[in-house]
Amino acid sequence: MATLVAPDHLSVVEDAEALRKACQGWGTDEKAIIKVLGHRNASQRKQIRESYEQLFEEDLVKRLESELSGDFEKAVYRWVLEPEDRDAVLANVALRKSETDFKAIIELSCILSPEELLGVKRAYQNRNKHSLEEDVAARTTGDLQKACISYTFTYRYNGEEVNARLASSEADILHEAIKDKAFNNEEVIRILSTRSKAQLNATFNHYRDVNKTSITKDLLGESANDFQKALHTTVRCTNDPLKYYAKLLCDGIKRFGTDEDSVTRVIVTRAEKDLKDIKEVYYKKNSISLDDAVAKETSGDYKAFLLALLGKED
Amino acid sequence: MATLVAPDHLSVVEDAEALRKACQGWGTDEKAIIKVLGHRNASQRKQIRESYEQLFEEDLVKRLESELSGDFEKAVYRWVLEPEDRDAVLANVALRKSETDFKAIIELSCILSPEELLGVKRAYQNRNKHSLEEDVAARTTGDLQKACISYTFTYRYNGEEVNARLASSEADILHEAIKDKAFNNEEVIRILSTRSKAQLNATFNHYRDVNKTSITKDLLGESANDFQKALHTTVRCTNDPLKYYAKLLCDGIKRFGTDEDSVTRVIVTRAEKDLKDIKEVYYKKNSISLDDAVAKETSGDYKAFLLALLGKED
Repeated sequence: MATLVAPDHLSVVEDAEALRKACQGWGTDEKAIIKVLGHRNASQRKQIRESYEQLFEEDLVKRLESELSGDFEKAVYRWVLEPEDRDAVLANVALRKSETDFKAIIELSCILSPEELLGVKRAYQNRNKHSLEEDVAARTTGDLQKACISYTFTYRYNGEEVNARLASSEADILHEAIKDKAFNNEEVIRILSTRSKAQLNATFNHYRDVNKTSITKDLLGESANDFQKALHTTVRCTNDPLKYYAKLLCDGIKRFGTDEDSVTRVIVTRAEKDLKDIKEVYYKKNSISLDDAVAKETSGDYKAFLLALLGKED
Repeated sequence: MATLVAPDHLSVVEDAEALRKACQGWGTDEKAIIKVLGHRNASQRKQIRESYEQLFEEDLVKRLESELSGDFEKAVYRWVLEPEDRDAVLANVALRKSETDFKAIIELSCILSPEELLGVKRAYQNRNKHSLEEDVAARTTGDLQKACISYTFTYRYNGEEVNARLASSEADILHEAIKDKAFNNEEVIRILSTRSKAQLNATFNHYRDVNKTSITKDLLGESANDFQKALHTTVRCTNDPLKYYAKLLCDGIKRFGTDEDSVTRVIVTRAEKDLKDIKEVYYKKNSISLDDAVAKETSGDYKAFLLALLGKED
């Protein structure tokens, strides 16, 4: 379930006017911006952007970019875009980092539905005039490239049908490769990058049943390299996205001051989807609510905005 | 331009009735089937299938499959399906051969537009309840797998924008790899499988201008292996599909008796698109018209049907 609290009925013209007012004159009224945008769903935000453009002949996204700054600006910018366009921006941000943030790329390709991923690819092409695949391929190398490329490229089957015999034989292939530390085995990449989510989860279950240990544990030895970590991320994103996101938030909050990016990414991308469920997993694991953890480690408008998206009433 | 001659106006009910009549009683009236289906475009065929189903509570495709046989049946079956569904069938046929027909797979991924390829992937999933990528990956191995997988997986950018600097640097990368006979170089696969058609053609042009020889010539040495042949096919499909198809027809016609598949495939898939242009290229190269070559080497209903699709008036 979502955490976002948005009204059923509203006047997009009033919203656009409130945002315009918040951006005018000396200083910016960040609270007013949060009051509006922190409580509007994707379709409402789209209508507000359109209404703003019509009324004031100005691009709301650009105006907000120039009015705001720091982590708050980044969060608002990501939030105000259409989901597919935002994911295209996030992919671009991940690829432009000095060390490519392959986690963000794997998330997209393993958590989004095939149709959602396709939408992101279209938005990426629209923005950059070349494909997401080109950039992923050009900015990663070796085994990691092979894996990242394959994951992003596939238009996976989205059905629920599972081939049990195949799950069994491919669980064996994965186990053999992991036992021999042949992580970059072509078969491993083939299986993880082409099979449907339902099929992969059947394979992982079979792996655990037969070997009495989960594939995630087996994948992450003590001296795991970047490639193993990428495989590990893939399995976790496919197997249990809620747990994956909760862990990402936990790691991100611990590293606050250095890694606001992943915390912003999870909250902004999941607030309208399953952030409530992620919060539950987070609480079970950390014995502190995500709201409290975020409140403790952040400040100012950034804090207020994240808490609004987390569904915390003012 | 297309070769197919289809009337602007027709009664799909009359067509459905004519087909029903041709299939009833002792024997089948193949000529009547050719007279109708050999002169209807994709949207008309779709309407005829629907009308047939409504009128006779029977699937026209299945009925034709059971009435006809041999190469004629195969050609009619491929023709009567919707284009994307037909390409999904062709991909399946290519993958099920004892030696995978990688040419047919590369054709799909390098000649179809990104949206057309996506449609084929959807049709493939619809038919098989798993993805095209899974089957391509499972049925090829080694370098060829790497290449085939990458080609099929990419949702390429379809725009006309070209980065000239990139074309120059990637032409150099290709030339270095080919000079060193490092055909399976990851960079070669990356470039060919991710760049847009427009970008690749700029790269191939740059290659030719700098090296005074075309990349296709350089790719195909005397002892070319399957992988080199696959790269060669990729470049040709990207660079000049008309020439590629003309050559495929020429090779197929020479091998008639053993390889009707590729001749049927080209004629059926291109009759509504650019078969007229392919015929021109064929004539220039062989000094015999494609119609005459097909008429000379085929016979019976199969011959009559191919000639109808080739636009030869009865």
